[in-house]
Amino acid sequence: MSSTLTISQQIRAPVARQLDLLETDLVRAYASEIGLVSAIGDHLAAMKGKRIRPMLVLLAAEIGRPDGAVSRKAALAVEMIHTATLLHDDSIDRSHLRRGLPTVNRLWNDQVSVIMGDHLFCKAFRVLHDDGLFDVAAVLSAGSDQMTCGEMLQMDLRRRYDISEAAYVEMAKLKTASLFGAACEVGAMIGGLGDQERSCLRSYGEGIGTAFQIVDDVLDFIGDASVMGKPIGSDLKDGRITLPLIAALREATAEEADRIRGAEWEEVVRFIKQRGGVEYAQAIAVRLAQAAKAAIAGFGACPATNSLALLAQHLVARNT
Amino acid sequence: MSSTLTISQQIRAPVARQLDLLETDLVRAYASEIGLVSAIGDHLAAMKGKRIRPMLVLLAAEIGRPDGAVSRKAALAVEMIHTATLLHDDSIDRSHLRRGLPTVNRLWNDQVSVIMGDHLFCKAFRVLHDDGLFDVAAVLSAGSDQMTCGEMLQMDLRRRYDISEAAYVEMAKLKTASLFGAACEVGAMIGGLGDQERSCLRSYGEGIGTAFQIVDDVLDFIGDASVMGKPIGSDLKDGRITLPLIAALREATAEEADRIRGAEWEEVVRFIKQRGGVEYAQAIAVRLAQAAKAAIAGFGACPATNSLALLAQHLVARNT
Repeated sequence: MSSTLTISQQIRAPVARQLDLLETDLVRAYASEIGLVSAIGDHLAAMKGKRIRPMLVLLAAEIGRPDGAVSRKAALAVEMIHTATLLHDDSIDRSHLRRGLPTVNRLWNDQVSVIMGDHLFCKAFRVLHDDGLFDVAAVLSAGSDQMTCGEMLQMDLRRRYDISEAAYVEMAKLKTASLFGAACEVGAMIGGLGDQERSCLRSYGEGIGTAFQIVDDVLDFIGDASVMGKPIGSDLKDGRITLPLIAALREATAEEADRIRGAEWEEVVRFIKQRGGVEYAQAIAVRLAQAAKAAIAGFGACPATNSLALLAQHLVARNT
Repeated sequence: MSSTLTISQQIRAPVARQLDLLETDLVRAYASEIGLVSAIGDHLAAMKGKRIRPMLVLLAAEIGRPDGAVSRKAALAVEMIHTATLLHDDSIDRSHLRRGLPTVNRLWNDQVSVIMGDHLFCKAFRVLHDDGLFDVAAVLSAGSDQMTCGEMLQMDLRRRYDISEAAYVEMAKLKTASLFGAACEVGAMIGGLGDQERSCLRSYGEGIGTAFQIVDDVLDFIGDASVMGKPIGSDLKDGRITLPLIAALREATAEEADRIRGAEWEEVVRFIKQRGGVEYAQAIAVRLAQAAKAAIAGFGACPATNSLALLAQHLVARNT
């Protein structure tokens, strides 16, 4: 059967029904008596994402014996938190395109985008509290707190061409991997798994989250904007120095490094490719994905763990 | 003794020690290994606010038998949520002055202000979850959710010169009173009060919160910018139609109303004063404050209830 399914379909297969129901949950969560909220909600629902974070909750839960309604509620909260950060990122970056559609700040304005993001943040915790899912809320608020610390760290490191690979990885871990890790941990809790399995799944999530961010940063240099549904080159434009450039600069002479700081986009991309920055970053991402797979190898084969292993490979091989 | 104390000092007297400790709690909560977070934290700590919302938590708790550490933790979370909204408001309104000091978006930039706000939102819930204060977190996430709905509703009603008083009051309740009400309810819970007392304190908080917002809106027309530490006139400039103008428009002829929509600031203020819009709004605020006092009259006299009654009067008589 698997030969007729795309890799994405194979990955989502064990929780496909749950993911379909999640789409309805999202539409319902975005509905509001306030016209503006419900109009934006419709737009967000149409802006279909990859739903990676909620899928992590559902797959991790599926390893154990989850209550389906509870894992879907946690998946809903994780996706709302993620969407809140997208609304804020697009607004402060003045981005006009996301997932192939105009952004909320483009269709409405920055103010609306920021406040709608706040609304989703608060509502995400509210839906968990309303259902008494306090341990889930605790893990997700800690993960979200780390995520925002990562975003602050990223701004602190802006235009710092001298940042180390370690500082970059630490930032990527906080900014992206902490929510991936929290999503997996929450799934493990809902599946009723033990402390050790919970910690393994968290490691898995953090590993693929860091790898995911590195690949994102690579694609911002070499991706195809039409495939990704958003423009490339925004990291460098905003002074975010990422792994492909960090690695390339390590191989450069002092004069070359000086020149690159003031160089045009095309020259920077050429420099990174010549100095092996893309391959280096990709290799680090692959290594992280392998380590993530190893972290859950002890669970033995089941549809959910197979999907998680496949997802780890797929995320580092993606072009979108 | 009371004759030598200002009204503000009389109000805070029953929880003065707790409020002093809260300042240290805030400094500690804002501290971070991330340079940018800790620099903004220092600025926020210096930007001393009136601390009304945390004071509500502490005073409401004091009516019962609170654990002081718990009520201070809840007060800390409420103030962090409030500060998060200020960071976002200032950023999207491009405000440059708050509490007499330059805003975070002025000293740093809009991006930093938005992300730091997100950080405070997430951290507020995290500090509660970390201490197992789940019922407190539940009430505050519901209150914050309503608050963001109020902000969205406000944007939906922008430039709607025809909005009714009822729609305005509903918006003010959501936007401002829901967090005031949640703060009081949380205090009641921590003080171990019963359901009925909890509901009375929530009504009190919602009443003074709505009154507070109306007075804020009045001051945006007739306040003294140097006393308030922020400029006036920003509501109208941003298309926010508030009670003084709504009330004045009700008294106007159709031609006059048409003229006011396109009029300059000075003319709008003159029109509102002539048509009694300021007095009308102030009278509504006073009536709400009286009803709030009545809601807690059943508790009998004690230092905390006396302070809450005094606060209700003071908030509608303020000029800052």
